[in-house]
Amino acid sequence: MVSMKETDTYELFYWPSIQGRGEFVRLALEEAGASYVDVARRPESEGGGVAAMMKLLHAPGAAPFAPPFLRSGGLVIAQTANILLYLGPRHRLVPGDEASRLHAHQIQLTVGDMVAEVHETHHPIGSSLYYKNQKPEALRRAELFVKERIPKFLSHFERALAASDGHYLFGDDVSYVDLSLFQLLQGLGYAFPRATAAIAPKVPELVTLCDRVRARKRIAAYLASSRRLPFNEDGIFRRYPELDAGATS
Amino acid sequence: MVSMKETDTYELFYWPSIQGRGEFVRLALEEAGASYVDVARRPESEGGGVAAMMKLLHAPGAAPFAPPFLRSGGLVIAQTANILLYLGPRHRLVPGDEASRLHAHQIQLTVGDMVAEVHETHHPIGSSLYYKNQKPEALRRAELFVKERIPKFLSHFERALAASDGHYLFGDDVSYVDLSLFQLLQGLGYAFPRATAAIAPKVPELVTLCDRVRARKRIAAYLASSRRLPFNEDGIFRRYPELDAGATS
Repeated sequence: MVSMKETDTYELFYWPSIQGRGEFVRLALEEAGASYVDVARRPESEGGGVAAMMKLLHAPGAAPFAPPFLRSGGLVIAQTANILLYLGPRHRLVPGDEASRLHAHQIQLTVGDMVAEVHETHHPIGSSLYYKNQKPEALRRAELFVKERIPKFLSHFERALAASDGHYLFGDDVSYVDLSLFQLLQGLGYAFPRATAAIAPKVPELVTLCDRVRARKRIAAYLASSRRLPFNEDGIFRRYPELDAGATS
Repeated sequence: MVSMKETDTYELFYWPSIQGRGEFVRLALEEAGASYVDVARRPESEGGGVAAMMKLLHAPGAAPFAPPFLRSGGLVIAQTANILLYLGPRHRLVPGDEASRLHAHQIQLTVGDMVAEVHETHHPIGSSLYYKNQKPEALRRAELFVKERIPKFLSHFERALAASDGHYLFGDDVSYVDLSLFQLLQGLGYAFPRATAAIAPKVPELVTLCDRVRARKRIAAYLASSRRLPFNEDGIFRRYPELDAGATS
């Protein structure tokens, strides 16, 4: 393995126009104050753009399956939770002991499972079809997601937070999982505003955590910057009001 | 963290009547020759059964979200890929260097993504509904899964194997990922026999890998034992012939 000097710059490869799964990595890099380039958002003339990402995706040998992926020195690391598993200890975004690291990764993987289910609410038949071509199925799926899955996932995260003896999941130091929980709640609030508002009183620890993360100096600066893309209907969290209707049924 | 002596016995918690996600862990434990108890398959009168699993799932504090989970000394580790991340280095089922471990975990997570999509083929609307109540949607989803997703995932794994300079993903020593790829192919062959037979000639490395894994002494003994549950229509891989029909369209 090629080691990376502390001063080296990470290269993040992700779709340039959406928050998507890449946002979980961006938030960790921002909180860490790490030097990174969001490659696909740079001009093609400077070696950026989607073309640069595709070049790596289609490289011979063992290429990533899909974005996001991170280049760090000689390593190319894919899968969101795997990237955070790598970044966490390097930037003190997770405690040093094995039990905490495994627990952090476990919750991160469950965040990822929920994100995948969010995607399924608007693409229950297949990601190669437009939403309009799977809308009846999406309505059925989203109704169950709002009614059953949002409460199940969020109460799980709420319990994990309640078990902590500090302001964050692992005491009083923020971890990459706290950042991801913040992002998850932002996405849910965008895509399912009614359902999220309805459940908020039942998950006070999560709501407070979001406030704490949002107020952190580097995160606040990032959220106010042009580096933070707005949510939109091309990403994973999409505001299709008809899918949020189950909240009142 | 409480350390575990090499001679201690792992406790695996998973549904007692299906292979499911637990099988990826079982295969790793079997190949390692590790001492383990498949807790929910033991009698309730001896502290086993689903009741023992539920007790841990509903324990106060930060409990797992879902089975499988593994108790190892004082640790309780959930999420299939996370359990394998833990077991791999302890039983030499992954090379020691960081780059290989991250790469192994990355591919394992992609195996997990495909397994989740397999589940969606028979439950595209929600896991709380019976298959018969989401069959039209399942037919649509499975057709795309067979046509687009199976080739995309399997060609990805095939490329990763082809990039290896040995018989397995990381040379000539078997890794937990090789075992998982074997299991994935067995499941696909059970659930989608026609689609799997159709694609087999295009993924020769994967087919050869399966033969090698199946012939390993401990794996062969395990597969012939009563510890190996048969596939069935309660698990993740289900043989619903109508969902395999896309193979010929």
